[in-house]
Amino acid sequence: EPSSTLRASAVPDAVAPLAPEMLQREVARTLADQAVARLGPRLLPSAVPEDVAEFRNGAGNALGSLDVRRGAPRSSIDFMLQSSLHCKVPNGAIDITSILIFLNTATDAPHFLLELIQGSPTSIVVVLDLLPRKDLALHPDYLQKYYENTRLDEQRAKIEELPQACPYRSPSLFVRSACSPTAVLVTIDCGQGGEGALEEIVQGRLATVAKDVLQIWLDSCADSTTEMDDTERDCLLKRDQIVRSKSIEVDLTASLPRMFDPDVSSRIISEIRKAFGVQEP
Amino acid sequence: EPSSTLRASAVPDAVAPLAPEMLQREVARTLADQAVARLGPRLLPSAVPEDVAEFRNGAGNALGSLDVRRGAPRSSIDFMLQSSLHCKVPNGAIDITSILIFLNTATDAPHFLLELIQGSPTSIVVVLDLLPRKDLALHPDYLQKYYENTRLDEQRAKIEELPQACPYRSPSLFVRSACSPTAVLVTIDCGQGGEGALEEIVQGRLATVAKDVLQIWLDSCADSTTEMDDTERDCLLKRDQIVRSKSIEVDLTASLPRMFDPDVSSRIISEIRKAFGVQEP
Repeated sequence: EPSSTLRASAVPDAVAPLAPEMLQREVARTLADQAVARLGPRLLPSAVPEDVAEFRNGAGNALGSLDVRRGAPRSSIDFMLQSSLHCKVPNGAIDITSILIFLNTATDAPHFLLELIQGSPTSIVVVLDLLPRKDLALHPDYLQKYYENTRLDEQRAKIEELPQACPYRSPSLFVRSACSPTAVLVTIDCGQGGEGALEEIVQGRLATVAKDVLQIWLDSCADSTTEMDDTERDCLLKRDQIVRSKSIEVDLTASLPRMFDPDVSSRIISEIRKAFGVQEP
Repeated sequence: EPSSTLRASAVPDAVAPLAPEMLQREVARTLADQAVARLGPRLLPSAVPEDVAEFRNGAGNALGSLDVRRGAPRSSIDFMLQSSLHCKVPNGAIDITSILIFLNTATDAPHFLLELIQGSPTSIVVVLDLLPRKDLALHPDYLQKYYENTRLDEQRAKIEELPQACPYRSPSLFVRSACSPTAVLVTIDCGQGGEGALEEIVQGRLATVAKDVLQIWLDSCADSTTEMDDTERDCLLKRDQIVRSKSIEVDLTASLPRMFDPDVSSRIISEIRKAFGVQEP
């Protein structure tokens, strides 16, 4: 019979808060399952080399995972990308979990994006959006179709009405410009001793809203195709390329090299570039 | 010698808070003077009929003013519009003051917009922006030129860091889409008994930030001209028209008929349409 010490470590205490990275990944895994269940054969099997699927720092202070599944030929899915980064820092750890499902030019429907960034067990940054692919001020019909009719703003409000939520302003004006007016862009800060409160929010309200936003995306975007003339398709392609290049520049090329050795981060960044279909600058 | 009662009403008590409409108009008047001083002969004299320059409701519960000055021929100014609305409601009054300075297609530089909306003596909604005229996600160079290089985001932060400020979400997703990522979109709520605190903020921090944002606009946008080919100019014109039509629809055709008799509100709306260069829907 195992000692009580062993049992205690093997069966985690039900009331102790989960580690931040566990929380985030649980939410992300559930979402990924939801997307995969619906998209089914429209997603090809994972296509990343082993040393990209999981990677770590030489010093052992950082580890990460990246999975990219391309869309099947003739589907409107370009790729689904999941990543998680965990990096120990002097006073704790930084965790970043992302899910992106991007569409190709068979449609102009929005992409799906979730990013969770956590630097402490009591607060989390949430970026959750259906990323518009057209200029919303020039295309009110597009705004109405994908954002008004789907009542996405009610999802945003459910997060923002949390007393612990305050607006998160990306330091990049470009990132702010690329988001929709219904984007969830918040810091949820539960303050000192708020580990349990944050866990409850992440597993409760946040998980529910993320699931509902993904469901809206699956229902109104994932299957759509759009008739376009060449000029429209060229413009869509150009805008997509700029948004992809810029978000790599702002997001990953900024954080990966700070967390991982140069050879690791450049390997990962080049795999992400491949998925995004953008070249080195 | 006048009685002390008369004197008391003729010389307002220096410590009593100003009425909300006075506060707003003072800020707007100072800004208008600043713009007129710089734009000088590029603004033609006021061109509105007398019954538009000032108007009131039959019941006497609402009054307003509208001034439109067109830009001089061969200038890049399309028009400068100032308006103020005051309407008594059962528990107080609603006041809305606006300044818009819109450019024509000699340039693609942003328009200037300030709107102050007040429904109580202790709180105010502030919308202050250089309205972008291009899709910022498609034109990072435009974003950099007018929003990053001018450090507009620091002006936004000066207002948002006020403890009394919280984000204002326009119920219209279109209005949110039309604003820049550096737009000031806040409610400043000083709470019960906060009349004096609000007066201090409006005359202090808010007046200063509005002045500085206008100065940025005057320095970087008002004089600019942009080389454009026909396609670019057509796109700019189309986007401008949509933003103008939509903002009239959302803003004025929504609030004016609730405040004024139908004949008054339709007269004013048609004058604003004329300035905006858009037709009845």
